Amino acid sequence: MSTRKTLTAPVPPGGTIGILGGGQLGRMLALAAARLGLKARVFCDSPSAAAFDVCDGHVVGKFADLAAVGQFAAACHAVTFEFENVPAATVDHVAALVPVNPGARALRVTQDRVTEKDFLRDAGLKTARYFSVTSEDYFEPALLMCGAPAIFKTRRMGYDGKGQAKVASEDELARVFAELGAAPGILEGFVDFAFEASVIAARGADGAFAAYDPPENAHEHHILRRSTVPGRLTAAQGEAAKAIAKKIADALDYVGVLAVELFVAKDGSLLVNEIAPRVHNSGHWTLEACAVSQFEQHIRAVAGWPLGDPARHADAVMENILGAEAADWEAYARRPGALHLYGKGEARPGRKMGHFTTLKPLTTD
Amino acid sequence: MSTRKTLTAPVPPGGTIGILGGGQLGRMLALAAARLGLKARVFCDSPSAAAFDVCDGHVVGKFADLAAVGQFAAACHAVTFEFENVPAATVDHVAALVPVNPGARALRVTQDRVTEKDFLRDAGLKTARYFSVTSEDYFEPALLMCGAPAIFKTRRMGYDGKGQAKVASEDELARVFAELGAAPGILEGFVDFAFEASVIAARGADGAFAAYDPPENAHEHHILRRSTVPGRLTAAQGEAAKAIAKKIADALDYVGVLAVELFVAKDGSLLVNEIAPRVHNSGHWTLEACAVSQFEQHIRAVAGWPLGDPARHADAVMENILGAEAADWEAYARRPGALHLYGKGEARPGRKMGHFTTLKPLTTD
Repeated sequence: MSTRKTLTAPVPPGGTIGILGGGQLGRMLALAAARLGLKARVFCDSPSAAAFDVCDGHVVGKFADLAAVGQFAAACHAVTFEFENVPAATVDHVAALVPVNPGARALRVTQDRVTEKDFLRDAGLKTARYFSVTSEDYFEPALLMCGAPAIFKTRRMGYDGKGQAKVASEDELARVFAELGAAPGILEGFVDFAFEASVIAARGADGAFAAYDPPENAHEHHILRRSTVPGRLTAAQGEAAKAIAKKIADALDYVGVLAVELFVAKDGSLLVNEIAPRVHNSGHWTLEACAVSQFEQHIRAVAGWPLGDPARHADAVMENILGAEAADWEAYARRPGALHLYGKGEARPGRKMGHFTTLKPLTTD
Repeated sequence: MSTRKTLTAPVPPGGTIGILGGGQLGRMLALAAARLGLKARVFCDSPSAAAFDVCDGHVVGKFADLAAVGQFAAACHAVTFEFENVPAATVDHVAALVPVNPGARALRVTQDRVTEKDFLRDAGLKTARYFSVTSEDYFEPALLMCGAPAIFKTRRMGYDGKGQAKVASEDELARVFAELGAAPGILEGFVDFAFEASVIAARGADGAFAAYDPPENAHEHHILRRSTVPGRLTAAQGEAAKAIAKKIADALDYVGVLAVELFVAKDGSLLVNEIAPRVHNSGHWTLEACAVSQFEQHIRAVAGWPLGDPARHADAVMENILGAEAADWEAYARRPGALHLYGKGEARPGRKMGHFTTLKPLTTD
């Protein structure tokens, strides 16, 4: 059995951070590493990954190819990942060679929706009602537990609304279960929320904790459309959201940035929707509105640096640029605010091509 | 005689911007290009240039090697430079292949201190008294014109106080002139200023103009120590500074970001010290305090994009991290604010290793 490497000292300027995954999150992590004088190297299975243009070196390979990932990692001083579906075996293999954060426990908990919900329940946090569904035997009790309508989701590999569907009856649940390959799933009760929010926070290698002000989020077709800070959360809800993130980060012995997606119920209570063990789309506004962005904060944590100040010095609204909207780049470039384009070629429907952040002087309340 | 290429359409996302020079300015230009989904390629004579880690490709070569520079430029959609001492012949050669901005006129004017001062005088702008000194015959009239003490500077290739010295008499001028190789120079009258300032502005390929709020600057040993915005400039002085930058940019038919260094005299008038035809150290605070930084603004201009909004959404103080100060990176990382390290190896005395920007909510007056 292999030993996991841990950070014994910060990676000094000039050191190399390895990033598994080369999409827009990996790209913005690489750019953040550069600000700190750190080199970034990116491993991705796509030969045209968005992050490749902005890093010191890259490797194209399969995440399941342990030899390739191991060779990549051995040239880095610390390794992280931009998405939670890195195979656990890959992370274990790399962790024996070089410090990897967030660690295996965070991945194990967040890669499986039932494990995640159980973890949240055990931590004393509110979630939607849920029920594990592994076969047709569970259709009836699951609907009894969750009520109808409810959302059926596969336990693994879902994102942006993929691998899930709303069901209002046992027949519909049976059909959706079959359509999604009869894979183990979870039924989640429908939450009649007032609005959605999230909290982006970081825990350092030294256990320090820092949370950004929680944005209010709006989704369209299960994809984030807009994050607004300050949103409709009260000051007390904001503090409660940060406390939830701290509880989760501490329980996972987490190192890095994590995002907690929240439902704000009509009675004002906060329910945890899901945990993303990584930087998050709803935190992109931190690039302009905070001295240290979520991307830099994550790099600081995984490199063993002190966490940065998450204070917000401006108000912000971040909107995603999706699919064909990217063709309007010149119109976006004319708008007052910060345009980010991710260097992706094909603008498939719903694909995250960039984002735009509008800034205003800080409102104090 | 070769024709100069001009931009006929904006370089679209995915296009490539070539940057001549790979120091920290080239590095931050490359990072800014990445934000817009543009690729950056860097040409530099140093094999360990700071910008190489963060760009899509780089070439090590001499700026005087026209074949190498030409081959580099031919793979780019637009070319710019990070420093004003690129040989004019190199710029002319590249300009025949691909649009280069700022153009040859801006370089010709700013590469020579006498040509620059004559240009400013002809534009009706105030400067220190000055006199061209090409031999000992000019020592006496130069000192008569400028008074003593005065500053003798070589006409070409000076920066950060290099190639200049204070002189109080004809004997001292004779000694300094000889020490600096008896090269053509300029004597400049001493300005008993209240403080120093600068204005960072941009002119687009379409003639549009945008200026950032002018910072107050403090120097130590002729090297910028600190830029503060807002500084001590009054609103009227700020507007006057922006008007000076516009007059210069229009007169040079300039495309890109330029910086104008100013003396604020004790009577409140503004004297132009010098023009930098590039992004400038005193504009680094725009990275956090504005939606579009000076680096992105420059990339936008040279790529033919609309200029971005220069509005400031926060107050800022930028301090340089010089030489051995970079060893304190962990202490800087603990301070609230934005740390930038340039990825340079050797921390020679006075070398610009990084900078630190402290942010505060916008003061409105």
